[in-house]
Amino acid sequence: MVTVDTGQKNMVIEGLVMAREWEALVTILKKMPVVEVVEVLKDLDMPDLIEVLGHFTEEEQGYIVSDFDPEMQVGLYEQLAPRRFSRIFIHMASDLRADFFQELDREDQLKLLPYLDKKTRENVIRLSSYNPETAGGIMSTDFATIMGDMTAAQAIEKVRRDAPSRKMIYYVYVVDDDMKLHGFTTLKDLIMADPDTSIWDIVFKDFALAEVDEDRETVAARIEKYDLVAIPVINKYGQLAGIVRHDDALEVIQAEQTEDMEKFMGIVPDEDGLDYPETSVVSHFRKRITWVASLAIIGVLSGMIIHRYEEAMSALIILALYMPMVADSGGNVGSQAATVVIRALALGQVTLRNWMMILWKEARIAIMLSFVLGIIAFGKILFLSWETDVPEQFSLFFIAFGISVALSLQVISATLIGAALPLLVKRLGGDPAVAASPAITTMVDITGLLIYFGIAVMLFF
Amino acid sequence: MVTVDTGQKNMVIEGLVMAREWEALVTILKKMPVVEVVEVLKDLDMPDLIEVLGHFTEEEQGYIVSDFDPEMQVGLYEQLAPRRFSRIFIHMASDLRADFFQELDREDQLKLLPYLDKKTRENVIRLSSYNPETAGGIMSTDFATIMGDMTAAQAIEKVRRDAPSRKMIYYVYVVDDDMKLHGFTTLKDLIMADPDTSIWDIVFKDFALAEVDEDRETVAARIEKYDLVAIPVINKYGQLAGIVRHDDALEVIQAEQTEDMEKFMGIVPDEDGLDYPETSVVSHFRKRITWVASLAIIGVLSGMIIHRYEEAMSALIILALYMPMVADSGGNVGSQAATVVIRALALGQVTLRNWMMILWKEARIAIMLSFVLGIIAFGKILFLSWETDVPEQFSLFFIAFGISVALSLQVISATLIGAALPLLVKRLGGDPAVAASPAITTMVDITGLLIYFGIAVMLFF
Repeated sequence: MVTVDTGQKNMVIEGLVMAREWEALVTILKKMPVVEVVEVLKDLDMPDLIEVLGHFTEEEQGYIVSDFDPEMQVGLYEQLAPRRFSRIFIHMASDLRADFFQELDREDQLKLLPYLDKKTRENVIRLSSYNPETAGGIMSTDFATIMGDMTAAQAIEKVRRDAPSRKMIYYVYVVDDDMKLHGFTTLKDLIMADPDTSIWDIVFKDFALAEVDEDRETVAARIEKYDLVAIPVINKYGQLAGIVRHDDALEVIQAEQTEDMEKFMGIVPDEDGLDYPETSVVSHFRKRITWVASLAIIGVLSGMIIHRYEEAMSALIILALYMPMVADSGGNVGSQAATVVIRALALGQVTLRNWMMILWKEARIAIMLSFVLGIIAFGKILFLSWETDVPEQFSLFFIAFGISVALSLQVISATLIGAALPLLVKRLGGDPAVAASPAITTMVDITGLLIYFGIAVMLFF
Repeated sequence: MVTVDTGQKNMVIEGLVMAREWEALVTILKKMPVVEVVEVLKDLDMPDLIEVLGHFTEEEQGYIVSDFDPEMQVGLYEQLAPRRFSRIFIHMASDLRADFFQELDREDQLKLLPYLDKKTRENVIRLSSYNPETAGGIMSTDFATIMGDMTAAQAIEKVRRDAPSRKMIYYVYVVDDDMKLHGFTTLKDLIMADPDTSIWDIVFKDFALAEVDEDRETVAARIEKYDLVAIPVINKYGQLAGIVRHDDALEVIQAEQTEDMEKFMGIVPDEDGLDYPETSVVSHFRKRITWVASLAIIGVLSGMIIHRYEEAMSALIILALYMPMVADSGGNVGSQAATVVIRALALGQVTLRNWMMILWKEARIAIMLSFVLGIIAFGKILFLSWETDVPEQFSLFFIAFGISVALSLQVISATLIGAALPLLVKRLGGDPAVAASPAITTMVDITGLLIYFGIAVMLFF
């Protein structure tokens, strides 16, 4: 069991690897979940890996290689004769096989194809032709079908006959001779039903499905909403083209979440979806520079505002000292408000129609925040600036009061901007997450400076 | 089908609701997925809702009410006689039933218990006793068990006999007379196997499992890693206590992601995990004020640094003008680096052992960023300050050069701090996400001011 004696099992495995006792190792590996087998294999040198793989059946090899990461798959492909590799390839999961096929360059693809049987060849070419961002791009064809005029017993018999071990048979799809999808039933219902029951009596005809060119994120959300093990994917003729499984949906949701967080920090998401270590320094740089450079250029605006008040600051240097404090507070509360609203939108807790409720709520939260932060600012100024030179006509008290009022107003306006910006972006058809934190910081910098100097000029000059 | 004619179906349903044709409505609802039935019901007034529910079987009512949100469940409970409610309650999903039971106050709990049969009563009390943050807190008891000495045919027969429609039977657990868990097999393997095969020949004995008091996030990650439909949960005696399903895991992963994003923005996550609209203004305020107020207080440090250079700024007012620009650039690149590292840690793409690789990579990225941002800053200063008064001994060119160098150094140090802080927090046993963006902004503000004025004093005074 995984949580029990894992340490001991690992030690035994390590020992067998060191002693190069491949046969004994495979005996143990064969009893382990595939994910763990892959973890053991990925630490081996390629020649050893190939030797160990050879002790598994071709079907098992297909399972295992399906779970390799793309780099390992390509490495294996390069080391094996195309004929031997094709035998593994045929037994790989259809979706992962197509993903791997897309990784190969044109020449390698053409080298592999002649070794495949017609069915596999057509399947690979079809699956790898879909856009990876769509349902078609993540679906597999490892599903089981039955006909509506069968009985439950006949259906179970057909599933048993057809299903190699790869297939997902917990949902069984009802199709006609043209592969048009008419409904689905679960293996559970088939088993619980009287053997003579007609499939038409237990089939679900009103159910969630996806279309091949639908966005994969929408499809993943549908799997989540209906708590499905898998969702059927149809093409434009209404034919069953594939299924997307719950674990694929989870992967998509994780990837989209990373994208959201990156967008939110002004990082342009990767098209390849590579891991951190796999992404090159230059790619990392490219992903980040776009936003920070744009914001630096937009910063010219705040620079111009600051310059307009250059004289005011020369006359009252204390104004220059507290300018960053006001800007920072605005940035912090604005980003907080944006985060909360973006996440609530992403999880469907609120929609655009709720915008009045959201802004009214944020306004009340902002007033409370501004009160507390204003008091802290007032105390800070008195504490820090008690020996700063202040022109005779002012008291430090009065100046501290003015700056704190400006800060409080800035907290309110920044919170409202932070909450409103994602709503606005969504209203205009964009992804709310691009109302990113750096964008909000830059924006509230500008409003903050206007509020700050506006109040200063009003009160002190 | 969901994607086809949804509009038409909705219109029919709306018409039937308006005409209060409850029986006809239920005929249609009975063919729809439960999630969609709930969506229709939640728009009804409570008396209508109760009438419509009455047209379903008690078992179906249990299904439907399981999918209600907590508020609706409590509302229904308050309107129904305990006896009628208990009939629905008995048929609810065991995990959701226990969650609802925890929502009730002590008095209502005691009022409901006498109407339950002994088995349900014990089940509810046991399931609601676990900490909601653990595997026990999210598991259900709707699983199917068999004995190891059965044949495949006997096992299928037992599953058929035992399984009310609630149960997850795609994985079947092998237990002994004391409910100790010895392995599991899949319904698929049972069906594919020869009917006379002994269960011991097809059982998995080396498999992923969870313990009742394990953190729910760890358990969800395990379900994800092994692509499981469900994971068995054992108690300290090794007995099968429940299962956590793939859809529960997905929910946990979503909730944890929200928490991460909130922490990252300096928002204290909610214990209740309430939706945005359900959280009160005061709770929202409390979740946000902690960090921003702490940071405002820590900001005294940057205030003190700024004050130390008050004279420098009075002498060279241009220094005051560009202070915010340097701080902002540092905050942006620091937050970006932190986001990328936190996410890579969360997804298991990197571990603490990779810290040297990470920092070396970030250092190279930082140098590229500093170069571009330095050049933009240089251009900005020349453009904005061409008519600013500069003391005679300096050229604007030289000052722009000095400030740009300071900004470049700040970009490098902020990137490294942003990348290092989450690693450090994780090393100290904390959640890397608390190395939150506001914390990093405040921290790099301090280093930025030191770099900025350090270079200014060196070059200009």
